[in-house]
Amino acid sequence: MSTVVDEILAANAQYVSEFGDRRSLPLPPARQVAILTCMDARLDPAHFAGLKEGDAHVIRNAGGRASDDAIRSLVISHKLLGTQECLVVHHTNCGMQLFTDEVMGDLLAQSLDTAVLDGDRWRDIGTGPGSSAGRSIDWLTFRDLEESVREDVRRIRQSPLLPPTLPVRGFIYDVTTGGLQEVMVPEG
Amino acid sequence: MSTVVDEILAANAQYVSEFGDRRSLPLPPARQVAILTCMDARLDPAHFAGLKEGDAHVIRNAGGRASDDAIRSLVISHKLLGTQECLVVHHTNCGMQLFTDEVMGDLLAQSLDTAVLDGDRWRDIGTGPGSSAGRSIDWLTFRDLEESVREDVRRIRQSPLLPPTLPVRGFIYDVTTGGLQEVMVPEG
Repeated sequence: MSTVVDEILAANAQYVSEFGDRRSLPLPPARQVAILTCMDARLDPAHFAGLKEGDAHVIRNAGGRASDDAIRSLVISHKLLGTQECLVVHHTNCGMQLFTDEVMGDLLAQSLDTAVLDGDRWRDIGTGPGSSAGRSIDWLTFRDLEESVREDVRRIRQSPLLPPTLPVRGFIYDVTTGGLQEVMVPEG
Repeated sequence: MSTVVDEILAANAQYVSEFGDRRSLPLPPARQVAILTCMDARLDPAHFAGLKEGDAHVIRNAGGRASDDAIRSLVISHKLLGTQECLVVHHTNCGMQLFTDEVMGDLLAQSLDTAVLDGDRWRDIGTGPGSSAGRSIDWLTFRDLEESVREDVRRIRQSPLLPPTLPVRGFIYDVTTGGLQEVMVPEG
């Protein structure tokens, strides 16, 4: 039995004991907003955006990218569950700026085990088998943080499955301050 | 200016003022765990699993499905950032059980605006244009909740880009109690 899962289940038992009124929350988000952000462990969207259970859809992946799957989620959010606004939140010191598709393809080909970052070079220390399947994947890395926000805001705005009038705004979260800074993305 | 975004930015200013030690959190998740769960507004993984900033990667999409994009995120999480365990958390009363690909394709073809659920039938009330592009998308809906958890746990375990030894466990979150219940998924 994993220690981490044990701890999570103990914390969950505590949560259940204090659940209260949350038992009757409706399915559609009360504040009609969806937030697309990174999976990064340092980000807690409920905390940094002041959201409580029932308020907002939260979509997270590596980078907070407007992948096809994120857009699938946003379309369900708007079309079926009534969200009327979307925020894209990328962040400083993002892992997606620390590698390229080529680096990831090479690392995975060598071993599937966790690699280490030595200065600015990734080094494989694993001994397990690798796979070349990583070479055919777009890992959605980026170099320029503001540009990645603009790109993803535009990608959502231009989705054929979301109304062009749906407000989509972009932000950068600073992991050293907790602050959100808007990235202006002109329409069109 | 949107009221919701104004409120979010006001809440964020408060968060910044109390940020404290979080400013120096490292990038890799301290508890070396990744949680894949649904975007549903009622779910707050940090709360229900007792996670604080810096602890865990959180990946969220419509349904908490092990989509290609979720697996992209999990591979980055394990290969580059050291997570050594993965939890899949689906939940009761999930929106993904309330429609099918055919229903969604029809609704989007009629209008991109938000539809309403009338008993167990979706009804388009929007007047904006629609798009047939929704017909070619796999929306990753499901009927059987436990089976969807098993399917996604297996999909992650079988990924050619994650070690077969990576522990992957499945859970159902009950939106009426806040509780997590494990879904056993035999290996192989």
